[in-house]
Amino acid sequence: MKTTYLDYAATSPLLPEAKEAMIRVLDGMENGQIGNASSLHYAGQNAKNIIEDARKNVAQLIGADPAEIIFTSGGTESNNTVANIFRGQKIAISSIEHPSMLESAKAYAGKLAILPVDEQGIVQWQQIPEDADLVSIMLANNELGTIEPITEVKKRCKNYNTFVHSDATQALGKIHINVKELGIDYLTISAHKIGGPVGIGALYVRKGSAFKPLLLGGHQEDRRRAGTSNALLAAGFGAAAKWCWNNWSCKKYLQIAKLRDELCKRVLNEVPYSSLNGFEKAENGNTLPNILNMSFQAAEGESIQLYLDADDVIVSTGSACAAGDIQPSHVLMAISGDAEVAHSSIRFSLGLDTTAEDIDHVMAVLPKVIKRLQEISTIKIKEPK
Amino acid sequence: MKTTYLDYAATSPLLPEAKEAMIRVLDGMENGQIGNASSLHYAGQNAKNIIEDARKNVAQLIGADPAEIIFTSGGTESNNTVANIFRGQKIAISSIEHPSMLESAKAYAGKLAILPVDEQGIVQWQQIPEDADLVSIMLANNELGTIEPITEVKKRCKNYNTFVHSDATQALGKIHINVKELGIDYLTISAHKIGGPVGIGALYVRKGSAFKPLLLGGHQEDRRRAGTSNALLAAGFGAAAKWCWNNWSCKKYLQIAKLRDELCKRVLNEVPYSSLNGFEKAENGNTLPNILNMSFQAAEGESIQLYLDADDVIVSTGSACAAGDIQPSHVLMAISGDAEVAHSSIRFSLGLDTTAEDIDHVMAVLPKVIKRLQEISTIKIKEPK
Repeated sequence: MKTTYLDYAATSPLLPEAKEAMIRVLDGMENGQIGNASSLHYAGQNAKNIIEDARKNVAQLIGADPAEIIFTSGGTESNNTVANIFRGQKIAISSIEHPSMLESAKAYAGKLAILPVDEQGIVQWQQIPEDADLVSIMLANNELGTIEPITEVKKRCKNYNTFVHSDATQALGKIHINVKELGIDYLTISAHKIGGPVGIGALYVRKGSAFKPLLLGGHQEDRRRAGTSNALLAAGFGAAAKWCWNNWSCKKYLQIAKLRDELCKRVLNEVPYSSLNGFEKAENGNTLPNILNMSFQAAEGESIQLYLDADDVIVSTGSACAAGDIQPSHVLMAISGDAEVAHSSIRFSLGLDTTAEDIDHVMAVLPKVIKRLQEISTIKIKEPK
Repeated sequence: MKTTYLDYAATSPLLPEAKEAMIRVLDGMENGQIGNASSLHYAGQNAKNIIEDARKNVAQLIGADPAEIIFTSGGTESNNTVANIFRGQKIAISSIEHPSMLESAKAYAGKLAILPVDEQGIVQWQQIPEDADLVSIMLANNELGTIEPITEVKKRCKNYNTFVHSDATQALGKIHINVKELGIDYLTISAHKIGGPVGIGALYVRKGSAFKPLLLGGHQEDRRRAGTSNALLAAGFGAAAKWCWNNWSCKKYLQIAKLRDELCKRVLNEVPYSSLNGFEKAENGNTLPNILNMSFQAAEGESIQLYLDADDVIVSTGSACAAGDIQPSHVLMAISGDAEVAHSSIRFSLGLDTTAEDIDHVMAVLPKVIKRLQEISTIKIKEPK
């Protein structure tokens, strides 16, 4: 049976365009035509040109100027960089940020305000403290898909001269993003969630916004990020960003939203004691078109995953960054306050290759898997109110 | 005319073995067989296996246990990580460390001691303060090639319970390195100086040595470095490390040392008003087999580079990380105290593909280039004493 991969949010398969761009760079690295981008000779300049070309493509995808794009080693470094800018200052974040934002804000903030979210994961932006120096709210949550009201956040923060950062790692390529329209100061993005390679991300820094580098040393990235610039990974990131732009990926995802909503409806109808975490309909624009998070009473998430895996359906429990962790997901705890719900959840994340057959495949095996797990569980099932 | 590339220290061409290993991973990333290494399913485990295999090869090359190897985004991140462990404490470094060590130590140290070096770049280790918490001395300098007396450093520090770090970015693969023999706590290495890809390095952390992560978030690298693990770059790094080990690269470099020493002798003999920065003979083991730094009175380094470039000889002025900087090299200032010497220097860095014909090529064009520059210079040439 064909494998149904529904873990695109962990990493998305490499786009052929990104692969081709990277193989060209590998050839140049092997034959000496592509060198260290900081070198003044031809091999250095070839590397530099590739990187600057990639920067334009990445900038275009989020409506930024190329000079506002800093390449980093990924979303984690981008998020850590923002927290570090405000070291010792007052930082406000939502309770459902990615661990890389949560942990760095906790470590670096002088004062930290953690904003609660409602039952569907919407941050209570009205509670942003007036004296916050930075507020960081993700554009869309990686476990639930819930899209946050960044425009409202920005509106409120404008009154208090608070800098605004948003982690758009999961949202990129899935929904329309334009940093000028959002009016925010910082935006985190990553290549491997849109079909580019692992190991490169970017931080958008609005011209004039506070900044200090996290990695210190060389003058790369206009003195904003030390470390040898990466032509290989930039080429892959740039190609993936260009593909998303040229192919209107956000528009394509409107079709995926229908599949996601269909899967949601069918699971709720066909799997006893199932419940939804987040919004029911992606078509309404409250949640990402490709992420669906559901819980199943008396069925443990990791067990569901392993059983589905045996039936060639690949999903995940929460985020890959926390996989192997025995703690319940902080995101599901924040919206439900219920460790049982958190422990029994599964994230389905769809990609542009997902088809109606994939949804059928899931629905052919999921009900049996859940039934089996519920039968062997010692947890008592509560009838819905 | 064939180009003579003598800028291997900036970046070394990708080894075919590293390229092949990476193309295999690119194929797996494209067809979905290689996913996010933190994911529990097959695509995640395939990625994880590649990374762990690479870790063994990298560990082997420096005599470490695989568990003591943390993959990072490169030498800069490795060096910054070490400085960050000792944030607020007393750090002693040499005056000729790489900018990524120098700048991070300056930024993070509570107290900083900068140790002078002698005329050939040997650190005055006798001046390491007794109360230093960390001393960081590079294994070999990236501009001069000078090999530092790390064994002496370690011996002295042992008496004072000072942790010892060494940046071996340039030394890796060129001279024998065994962390157990050195007895040090931390070692920085990077892939792209040994024929691996840019964007990945490692930090050796001896079991039991103080540690805290620089990048915060996910649980990757045994909770020592957050951020999605990189199967693609690890495969390249591992293949390059394996190549160095299997092919006794350090032994091969003994032949390169002869070419380097020959170039040194010929430049001193055939180019008027030339002088050496560092040691004359790599064969004696005081300096790396592949780096040669020379100055030319009344000839500006960047001009020499551009003129040589026009004659298909690729060299650099100091390090690529500082290229484009109008400040004189801090390394040459430290050994000479003379801005003119620093501004008129060139680094030749050889690789395993360098041949006697390359040296002949340099010597066919260098004397003319220097003569031309000296003729148009307004700087008065001083006759040697």
